[in-house]
Amino acid sequence: MSKGLPKRSDDYSAWYNELVKRADLAENSAVRGCMVIKPYGFSIWEKMQRTLDDMFKETGHVNAYFPLFIPKSYLSKEADHVEGFAKECAVVTHYRLKNAEDGSGVVVDPEAKLEEELIVRPTSETVIWNTYKNWIQSYRDLPILCNQWANVVRWEMRTRLFLRTAEFLWQEGHTAHATKQEAIDETKLILDIYADFAEKTLGVPVIKGVKTEQERFAGAVDTYCIEALMQDGKALQAGTSHFLGQNFAKAFDVKFADKEGKLEMVWGTSWGVSTRLMGALIMAHSDDQGLVLPPQLAPIQVVIVPIFRKDEEFEKISAEADRIVKELKAKGISVKYDNRTTHKPGFKFAEWELKGVPVRIGIGPKDLEKGTVEVARRDTLTKEFVQAEGVETYVENLLAEIQENIYNKAKTYRDEHITKVDTWDEFKDVLKNKGGFISAHWDGTNETEDKIKDLTKATIRCIPLDAEDEDGVCVLTGKPSKRRVLFAKAY
Amino acid sequence: MSKGLPKRSDDYSAWYNELVKRADLAENSAVRGCMVIKPYGFSIWEKMQRTLDDMFKETGHVNAYFPLFIPKSYLSKEADHVEGFAKECAVVTHYRLKNAEDGSGVVVDPEAKLEEELIVRPTSETVIWNTYKNWIQSYRDLPILCNQWANVVRWEMRTRLFLRTAEFLWQEGHTAHATKQEAIDETKLILDIYADFAEKTLGVPVIKGVKTEQERFAGAVDTYCIEALMQDGKALQAGTSHFLGQNFAKAFDVKFADKEGKLEMVWGTSWGVSTRLMGALIMAHSDDQGLVLPPQLAPIQVVIVPIFRKDEEFEKISAEADRIVKELKAKGISVKYDNRTTHKPGFKFAEWELKGVPVRIGIGPKDLEKGTVEVARRDTLTKEFVQAEGVETYVENLLAEIQENIYNKAKTYRDEHITKVDTWDEFKDVLKNKGGFISAHWDGTNETEDKIKDLTKATIRCIPLDAEDEDGVCVLTGKPSKRRVLFAKAY
Repeated sequence: MSKGLPKRSDDYSAWYNELVKRADLAENSAVRGCMVIKPYGFSIWEKMQRTLDDMFKETGHVNAYFPLFIPKSYLSKEADHVEGFAKECAVVTHYRLKNAEDGSGVVVDPEAKLEEELIVRPTSETVIWNTYKNWIQSYRDLPILCNQWANVVRWEMRTRLFLRTAEFLWQEGHTAHATKQEAIDETKLILDIYADFAEKTLGVPVIKGVKTEQERFAGAVDTYCIEALMQDGKALQAGTSHFLGQNFAKAFDVKFADKEGKLEMVWGTSWGVSTRLMGALIMAHSDDQGLVLPPQLAPIQVVIVPIFRKDEEFEKISAEADRIVKELKAKGISVKYDNRTTHKPGFKFAEWELKGVPVRIGIGPKDLEKGTVEVARRDTLTKEFVQAEGVETYVENLLAEIQENIYNKAKTYRDEHITKVDTWDEFKDVLKNKGGFISAHWDGTNETEDKIKDLTKATIRCIPLDAEDEDGVCVLTGKPSKRRVLFAKAY
Repeated sequence: MSKGLPKRSDDYSAWYNELVKRADLAENSAVRGCMVIKPYGFSIWEKMQRTLDDMFKETGHVNAYFPLFIPKSYLSKEADHVEGFAKECAVVTHYRLKNAEDGSGVVVDPEAKLEEELIVRPTSETVIWNTYKNWIQSYRDLPILCNQWANVVRWEMRTRLFLRTAEFLWQEGHTAHATKQEAIDETKLILDIYADFAEKTLGVPVIKGVKTEQERFAGAVDTYCIEALMQDGKALQAGTSHFLGQNFAKAFDVKFADKEGKLEMVWGTSWGVSTRLMGALIMAHSDDQGLVLPPQLAPIQVVIVPIFRKDEEFEKISAEADRIVKELKAKGISVKYDNRTTHKPGFKFAEWELKGVPVRIGIGPKDLEKGTVEVARRDTLTKEFVQAEGVETYVENLLAEIQENIYNKAKTYRDEHITKVDTWDEFKDVLKNKGGFISAHWDGTNETEDKIKDLTKATIRCIPLDAEDEDGVCVLTGKPSKRRVLFAKAY
């Protein structure tokens, strides 16, 4: 099954692409840049959605749904916003097809041209703030704390499954507040939720930071982000939370009457994570045998594989397997008994390894005699014999341990790949030979940021929120700097 | 709050439109025909989704996600299908905007024209069967039982919130099978799931039937449906399940090797329900005071309203309310304590009536003295005093009773509005003066079906699955007929 999966050390990119396909996570569709998320991959995404959605709701957010289409003129109302999205958007111009007169099939009906073109939403700030205008009159209508789970389209030229696709799935939160401070607090609250979710559910350690002016969301005053590190030493932006100031309120004229009856502009935030997180999950943990899934997101947490030659052995093993399945399910653990007689145990082992099932239980005739089972861990690829009686408690603890171990392993790697650098030669050397985050001083100018990018392809991932004040000089220009920022090559 | 809600008897249509807006369910967006589903409305839809999704999964279905866009040429591959959808579809022709040279804003960039136009999916059979082609080689790959929750677009000229919108949300199941019988069984299984869901969760009684040839889904061999009746005597198609035969397999060349290695065409089904169900829910139960929600779908099942004059009364009532909230939550009942001091009880009563909260508990100073609370039912608009001690058990039973009563009430109305008719005069009379379903003989021809529609606007809603063989003559033409079908005016 995993035969021929490229090795990470040989070709990380090919390894990723093949893994996504072979583990049945996703595939390219016939539509350029659009993916099909296959059932196994989608069930992981559903678990992410459920967990995040619960976190949003616990903090007072509600879901709603806004239109897929955005009138072209709306995009233009916020100057930076249109600049950021106009170059890569799908444009609906007609609303009907008709039969071609030469019988060659259907063609666009020129008579069904829209008066104003519609853009398939690349993000929904404009259409939502246009709606909020009618929802907000007084301070009593605030805050509004809406989220939506939706598909969005950005016409990317180079696409990769999950990491960059023309259509992707995401959640986008859009909140409106009476005060600047409240909006900033919301932006940070969401950043904390994202970071908790990434670390505790995905098992992916992240650095919280703020983007430079050039890397900001088009239309934001500040963009906060969480940045993760993949096993090839490249960074991946895993979520963003934007403080929008009053930019969209101004663009759509959204005002409220405060307690004194004075009209004020509303403050806003927006924030999102997408199916890109699937890419982060895969690249942070998986190995040359296939996926490694944290138990909290694994569609199947435990698989039981019978090992037998004779039918009577199979029957006895199945009875024991059924017993264990029942015990595990009673603990809320998702378990599959792989009783296919069409495949050998070795094939099954490889298949479930490829698919990242955290725990595999093997049961053979000798196990029945001894009252044991063989428990294999996907994360460490180790196994041991365990008493069959009470194995459900053992597995329950093991799943928690695996969840923790996966995180710790990724964190150790990440921590070892944050390198403080003070000279340009060092910068280039670390980037080339080690990868990861480079913590270096930067003079704060767009020019230097651009130049470093041109020279090395490294970008400023973020100014970490916990960065300490430290006098230094810019690694490229030698100009003074007050704190270090994090550079990396990135997805 | 509910002041000015039109009466159903005066103007049913205006009543519906106003109710949808005032109860905060949905509103029209600035994009023609596209709606905004507001948080309160969306939370009802989320409950529908969750319940249905669980039912699909219990019967072996899995979720996946397929692209939003369909290449124009795909639509044409199934002749009936393109005929059915080409006339009302949103067409993406370009992938970029640019700044207008005269500085007037952004315009479509003519250089960014797509080689082949993309259709925003009106339904996904074509793109999914094109994908299944690669998933299916042998009988071992079957059945495929996929569902997706998605948005779709059909460019309807006349739209109404929830009932008919250009963009709507739905689930679409697409299954592939090795045998005809298995596909038919799947089609019927889903129809049963839809009917159960409509009756037990929405509290809306439905008739299961099969559509006439003309009312069939474009590309189906048979379309099964559930038909509901609204309070104005009009029918509403609440869900459809299609037996596709081998139509899409043939169009996309999807074959499998059977156990003997012989290549066969795959059999298919597709099935869906949409946000239209929100319209059915609203119109089946609600009254002139506002929404009436079945407890299983109510975002708030119980609201507690304090009735007081003095602050010290408010404090004591709040303590008692908090106690009851805790008891109700422990039973899994969603409850809100409306402790706003900015609004009077009468205002609150009207507001929660408008929003359809099934149970309202009122607590005043006298209740505290007597150890009682006042419990009001939304469905019957009746109220009674109940011992405060143990009110949570009373409410739990009451919610179940309300769920049942709402269904029974709708069923009584529906049953009273199925009228057997044997003459054309009777047909017209019932349609005009009573409404509802008319059970009548039909000669089985498209011509007669069309003529009846032209003359009366009534359509054949379905041939009920439980229709008995009965010799008769067509109500219009007098030609022989073997069974009755159901006619009605419909949404």
